[in-house]
Amino acid sequence: MSRIVIALGGNALGNSPEEQQRMIENAAPSLVSLIEQGHEIIISHGNGPQVGMINLAFDIASAKSEKVPKMELPECTAMSQGYIGYHLQKGIKKELHRQGMPWQAATVITQMIVDKNDPAFLNPSKPIGSFYTENEAKKIMEEDKSIVMKEDSGRGYRQMVASPKPIDIVERESIIKLLDSEFIVIACGGGGIPVILDENGDYKGVAAVIDKDYATAKLAELVDADYLFILTAVDYVAINYCTPEQQNLTEITVKEAKNYCEEGQFAAGSMRPKVEAAIAFAESKKGRTAVIASLEKAPLAMMGKSGTKIV
Amino acid sequence: MSRIVIALGGNALGNSPEEQQRMIENAAPSLVSLIEQGHEIIISHGNGPQVGMINLAFDIASAKSEKVPKMELPECTAMSQGYIGYHLQKGIKKELHRQGMPWQAATVITQMIVDKNDPAFLNPSKPIGSFYTENEAKKIMEEDKSIVMKEDSGRGYRQMVASPKPIDIVERESIIKLLDSEFIVIACGGGGIPVILDENGDYKGVAAVIDKDYATAKLAELVDADYLFILTAVDYVAINYCTPEQQNLTEITVKEAKNYCEEGQFAAGSMRPKVEAAIAFAESKKGRTAVIASLEKAPLAMMGKSGTKIV
Repeated sequence: MSRIVIALGGNALGNSPEEQQRMIENAAPSLVSLIEQGHEIIISHGNGPQVGMINLAFDIASAKSEKVPKMELPECTAMSQGYIGYHLQKGIKKELHRQGMPWQAATVITQMIVDKNDPAFLNPSKPIGSFYTENEAKKIMEEDKSIVMKEDSGRGYRQMVASPKPIDIVERESIIKLLDSEFIVIACGGGGIPVILDENGDYKGVAAVIDKDYATAKLAELVDADYLFILTAVDYVAINYCTPEQQNLTEITVKEAKNYCEEGQFAAGSMRPKVEAAIAFAESKKGRTAVIASLEKAPLAMMGKSGTKIV
Repeated sequence: MSRIVIALGGNALGNSPEEQQRMIENAAPSLVSLIEQGHEIIISHGNGPQVGMINLAFDIASAKSEKVPKMELPECTAMSQGYIGYHLQKGIKKELHRQGMPWQAATVITQMIVDKNDPAFLNPSKPIGSFYTENEAKKIMEEDKSIVMKEDSGRGYRQMVASPKPIDIVERESIIKLLDSEFIVIACGGGGIPVILDENGDYKGVAAVIDKDYATAKLAELVDADYLFILTAVDYVAINYCTPEQQNLTEITVKEAKNYCEEGQFAAGSMRPKVEAAIAFAESKKGRTAVIASLEKAPLAMMGKSGTKIV
């Protein structure tokens, strides 16, 4: 039996509750067959579109009604974990029930510790939330000096937040305890709610977004997983992607993966963080394997028949 | 050592993230001292103001922007569990850290099973979300026949949803497992996400709100708790409330409590559901005690020095 940590992309979850529920129901058979193969699974997910949507809803509504307060990013991430976790545990439970399997699924609201001195805080680069005009943006920045707004690809001004590296999970023990009791655990949604340790040693939420692939690699390391599955829209990692020389990779070493990264083979913000997260996990301990594969072919990937293995 | 289930009122959590965080930090010492006294605690909370606020934010924003979808009540409740659970686990952890106690706190996203034939579905009586004019209300009901809107106390029309009785918790095993491992568990927020079993035996979210006092009493019964603490704004349950003959009650039997209910001593939607939930728990098994007390005097109530005991 292997312990497998699975990262699902936030984009794979759609843009409305109906879409999300449908896409999760489509993905569930693939996830549940890993359990049928005798493995233990723990699921993490992105939340880019979802946290953006929640943030936008509160931005719009708080401007129109006194009954709706401004909602900061850590709280929006916490809401997205509840929202996505609910659908995931419901969808997985439905598939388990269909297969007559007695497993349980549970979502744990997760805080992820980041370093308050992470250089990412000096260069907020991750755009979130709604678009504003230059004048609106200046006014917002004057009113709250901690907010950074930048022009985003000619579409207007957006808030930019830091994307610091994950260090440790506050709820690690709870996650491990549930896993050890044979539960399917859903954790670290959206990379986790980013918190820093303040001067008193207490956790404090920060306006940041943790990359979900890095967060999942950290989760996989902390729960001592054997496999990290990063599930995405393509079947394989490829070099010379979208050229006549495109070559799908089935198994590469950490060293080869690093070389490809240096060559600039993988797109930043897309395949690159996935490969980097896979490298970080694969080299964290002997015997750990990372796999980048498509969601629907995850069970095949587990048998070595699809996906790219990083060893 | 006793196992204590604690119900916190949603109104005690304020109307904005800042208020919520502050009110939880004020409550944390009281909750943590129950652990210091050697007890195991599990926390449940209301979400009336919070789920209303989330629902309203999505109502307003989805009318203004195509990027924001309509959000149904089960999903809004799931969001409120993430939002409140995050602050609770952070606030409790902070107090534990201050006291040098090594305990962990974890929030479990919780679905509560209700009966699809519950008579409450025939008479939706719980108002939620925003106010509409009569014309707007009629239009909404024409567009979606499942929505019931009624005039609410002269303030306009509001959606009315059912408030069915809780039957069982989908995530019961996860909650018990964490409790047995000495975690402080936060569960059943807002009474739980209400789900019914459909014809295939799968869970399906329904637009309803479960009374959090009934839900907590059910939770206390299912985890085989010794005590149910319903924490509110007053120190005691009183008869002849707000009259010159007001009499605070320190200890009453289930039979006495039932008599007072029949006499109409307690206000519907306020003290009455609390007393009814206390009765349901106290009579569910020999030796179980329910206590209705104020949040700040919970540790005194545990020592029998404040609050109303129902035995």
